[in-house]
Amino acid sequence: MFESMHGLSRTHYCGELSAGENGQTVTLTGWVDTRRDHGGLIFVDLRDRTGIVQVVFSPDINKESFAKAEGVRSEYVLAVVGRVSVRPEESVNPNISTGEIEVLVDELRILNKAKTPPFYIEDGVDVDENLRLRYRYLDLRRPEMQRAMMMRNRAAKSVRDFLDEHGFWEIETPMLTRSTPEGARDYLVPSRLNPGRFYALPQSPQLFKQILMVAGMDRYYQIVRCFRDEDLRADRQPEFTQVDLEMSFVDVEDVLSLMEKMIARLCRDTIGIEVTTPFPRLTYREAMDRYGSDKPDTRFGMELVDITDVAAGCGFKVFTSAVENGGQVRGINARGCGSYSRKDIDELTKFAAIYRARGLAYFIVTAEGVKSPIAKFFNEQEITSILERFKAEEGDLLLFVADQPDVVAASLGALRLHLAERLNLIPADQFNFLWVTDFPLLEYDGEEQRWVAMHHPFTSPREEDLPFLQSDPGKVRARAYDMVLNGIEIGGGSIRIHRRDVQEMMFDAIGLTKEEAREKFGFMLEAFEYGTPPHGGIAFGFDRLVMLLLGRKTIRDVIPFPKTQSAADLMTMAPGPVDERQLKELYIKTTVKKTTEKK
Amino acid sequence: MFESMHGLSRTHYCGELSAGENGQTVTLTGWVDTRRDHGGLIFVDLRDRTGIVQVVFSPDINKESFAKAEGVRSEYVLAVVGRVSVRPEESVNPNISTGEIEVLVDELRILNKAKTPPFYIEDGVDVDENLRLRYRYLDLRRPEMQRAMMMRNRAAKSVRDFLDEHGFWEIETPMLTRSTPEGARDYLVPSRLNPGRFYALPQSPQLFKQILMVAGMDRYYQIVRCFRDEDLRADRQPEFTQVDLEMSFVDVEDVLSLMEKMIARLCRDTIGIEVTTPFPRLTYREAMDRYGSDKPDTRFGMELVDITDVAAGCGFKVFTSAVENGGQVRGINARGCGSYSRKDIDELTKFAAIYRARGLAYFIVTAEGVKSPIAKFFNEQEITSILERFKAEEGDLLLFVADQPDVVAASLGALRLHLAERLNLIPADQFNFLWVTDFPLLEYDGEEQRWVAMHHPFTSPREEDLPFLQSDPGKVRARAYDMVLNGIEIGGGSIRIHRRDVQEMMFDAIGLTKEEAREKFGFMLEAFEYGTPPHGGIAFGFDRLVMLLLGRKTIRDVIPFPKTQSAADLMTMAPGPVDERQLKELYIKTTVKKTTEKK
Repeated sequence: MFESMHGLSRTHYCGELSAGENGQTVTLTGWVDTRRDHGGLIFVDLRDRTGIVQVVFSPDINKESFAKAEGVRSEYVLAVVGRVSVRPEESVNPNISTGEIEVLVDELRILNKAKTPPFYIEDGVDVDENLRLRYRYLDLRRPEMQRAMMMRNRAAKSVRDFLDEHGFWEIETPMLTRSTPEGARDYLVPSRLNPGRFYALPQSPQLFKQILMVAGMDRYYQIVRCFRDEDLRADRQPEFTQVDLEMSFVDVEDVLSLMEKMIARLCRDTIGIEVTTPFPRLTYREAMDRYGSDKPDTRFGMELVDITDVAAGCGFKVFTSAVENGGQVRGINARGCGSYSRKDIDELTKFAAIYRARGLAYFIVTAEGVKSPIAKFFNEQEITSILERFKAEEGDLLLFVADQPDVVAASLGALRLHLAERLNLIPADQFNFLWVTDFPLLEYDGEEQRWVAMHHPFTSPREEDLPFLQSDPGKVRARAYDMVLNGIEIGGGSIRIHRRDVQEMMFDAIGLTKEEAREKFGFMLEAFEYGTPPHGGIAFGFDRLVMLLLGRKTIRDVIPFPKTQSAADLMTMAPGPVDERQLKELYIKTTVKKTTEKK
Repeated sequence: MFESMHGLSRTHYCGELSAGENGQTVTLTGWVDTRRDHGGLIFVDLRDRTGIVQVVFSPDINKESFAKAEGVRSEYVLAVVGRVSVRPEESVNPNISTGEIEVLVDELRILNKAKTPPFYIEDGVDVDENLRLRYRYLDLRRPEMQRAMMMRNRAAKSVRDFLDEHGFWEIETPMLTRSTPEGARDYLVPSRLNPGRFYALPQSPQLFKQILMVAGMDRYYQIVRCFRDEDLRADRQPEFTQVDLEMSFVDVEDVLSLMEKMIARLCRDTIGIEVTTPFPRLTYREAMDRYGSDKPDTRFGMELVDITDVAAGCGFKVFTSAVENGGQVRGINARGCGSYSRKDIDELTKFAAIYRARGLAYFIVTAEGVKSPIAKFFNEQEITSILERFKAEEGDLLLFVADQPDVVAASLGALRLHLAERLNLIPADQFNFLWVTDFPLLEYDGEEQRWVAMHHPFTSPREEDLPFLQSDPGKVRARAYDMVLNGIEIGGGSIRIHRRDVQEMMFDAIGLTKEEAREKFGFMLEAFEYGTPPHGGIAFGFDRLVMLLLGRKTIRDVIPFPKTQSAADLMTMAPGPVDERQLKELYIKTTVKKTTEKK
């Protein structure tokens, strides 16, 4: 029953054949996608990672092969030798790339049989994701998953080629490293040779890449696995992949211009689109003011409009008191939503409340003027001024939030996205890249009652803001930047502090004594004393980037073997139970009474 | 004191400059390698990862810069703007690539200061390795280490380019996986979300890469981190890097011919040597017979010579009884060692005893005939026959071992290497690649009293040997192969079993019931039922390969941040102590009473 490839050698991939090979004898290998018997012939769609080709068995060509083909079932593994033949016009299948031809099979070898798969090997299957993950090897046979893996591979190659051409060295940093005092939760690894001590899997190679700059490597990169032991809400994975890099002797502009070239090249090399560079740039302040977000989706308008000055003088207490308390009044124009019902608006109000907005005022713009419970608090001139700022037209709905700036931004920013989706304003095939720069260096932690680093304490402040580090810490802008694609942060980085005096000012600003700093960042600070060059870098979330390029909804669709929300691998059933002996050797005990195998 | 790069942009790397840039104004950055004051000028050797260039400060060019340069010390970080100037002939320095020119500095910026390093930043420093590891960022500044990192990067790029051109996709396999029942010791990772259960860090992606073949990926590769929690005798690291790949629809010949092309390309792309392909091939049997090793160093001769037939009939009891017990008598010719003293020969005998040889017989070949305590046991004809086989000449020393084949091979194989080193027979700049094929599929485990897989139980036997799987398991040859470079195994792999009937025969041969097999290899066997293509692959030890190419003595010299024999990172002091809280969250306890920080 089983036969081997002995003496055969594949000449083409299935999906590569076309009328150009007409008359040639070819050797193909692959899986049976479908089998049809028709008019005394057997038609098999043979599939490999490049696509599908129709192979035909006829008793007139080879009786033995035809007989064998009768036993063939879905997902059997075949090797066939046959002649490429252009199909008659009426048989051409325009749905597959090889639809103009078929292969008339002489020799058939059945290399392996297959049980019936638990789901169809085809795109868009409607099947529980857990079943797909359990049988990932079958799920990955589906053309859209094969394409995802191919594209992910191509994306990595594009990035590597680009960085190589620009003098970056791929340098590997350790996976077994030291637990860091801050950041997300570490995955720990007990050490057998160092009883009672633990390695941590890296959350990112941040410290090592800066050390590599101290080491004079000049330009480093890595496409590297990182680990975070977080609860997996949203679309997160316990292990994920970063494109991580660092450069010496550079400023913000150098990093930004190089990286947008890299991303443009990536888009060209993968999905074949041309992206315009330079990317638009927004300061953090601008982004918050105009979009209520530090990662704005600019594929549609509906920008936030400031009416604080007008509102300050109106008769509406909610507005005036917000302004008096240092707050602001802003709004968005939901174009054409003037017909929204009271219920619709109530729902929007509830939605805004998730982001702590205590209310949502509105104007409905009609031919007869503004309809609104609060219209009476505004005089004619104020209303005209407001309508002008919003470029409001008949049928529009203006929505206002009056509150502290962070609440206004968060609630209107979210409302803007919510409405855009509801109104179908977002073009699916558009790729809007942009930079957000000049993030605040520090943010005030109300709980700890002190200033903390918004990114990490090695992020460099802008030189001209140094004087404010003591006098007005909130005003200091960082030399930090995020790359945003369609409203999603895909990368972030900064120029780092390389000067000891600045580092000390920074520690001082976040209330860290020299001794505390030494304890927390020990070897790093020591390294920095031996001649550290100016340096900066960035890291991209590779899974997310590939997901967005391919228009997929979850990173699980572009990761070969992802884990579930409970961080389990359903195929291998990892994590699993281990022997007592293994734990004993590692000088640890589990505090769980009994470990049973999950099924 | 500190200055920034503001407004400056590096135009060249230091080591790139030559007379071709004469007269150009350049901006350079780097570290102060040395500073000399001479004739009213200050000479600084400025160093970056490309090399060194001499920059000159003169009060006549820029008084301010000259004054600043007086404060400059070793390892200070500088940016300089100056004019390239060809040196007068008598000042040319032939020892550095830029020795024909110097840069007359106008503007100097001191970007950072540096403490005095604990050792010199230069090649071949005689300093304790632990000190180098503690200050790895300084150690990595040494030109030979920079070259190692550059070459490692270039090696990875070469491999990636080659595999990409040959249709391999880089596909990432998980780091958090399931503990395997066999093989080396796993590193374990407790799971917070699955109390009492553990991930294992992969010893290799073996299972996943075979699963990817089941998934129809056709050609997979990865340059991937692997982990083994072994005692670190010899030159091992707890985490190491493999070039790992797998192909579908191939036979041994396909893998071998492609891989030698890849390695030849790697040699060309890194150290610029041309390697002849195809590589020589030896079966395991041949390798053992001729070199007493399954990873022979063929850079010199001194092959093992069989005299079992002659010895069988001689009067020397040690020889005849060895032959009668199924053993053999073999020897090597230590050319020109006829002058060795009794003491020398005693030492060689002791050396051979490490490999369980119970004795070492010898012939000293002189003009007057053979001198040997055992010469009297051989007649004229036997002696002539032996001398002929060894092509012995006056002044040679023949060394014989009579024992079971494994002892003969091990002891003579080791003796051969030992003598070659002692006699300086090994050319340092030669790269002898070869394949060893047809390893035994099974070996008998005397302790467990059963046959066990020599590689792993998915290794395919040669088809023509299948009948022996039951009748004579030791005779079955595997479709397994190792690539050997200068006597060191650098890669190994096999064609895998893809047929269920063969897999069952294999399990049967190693005494595994169906239930036991299912328990041990669960999901893998299930996957294999859904249409597994014929496939095979190989994995190379990347660290070792780079080490050998660069002629280094330890893999630690080609790994950016290696660990010590006790698996510690001396720079970050990993592994480290962790908080009780962290352990509690992971449902584990340490069994060590008190954890104190090592210094």
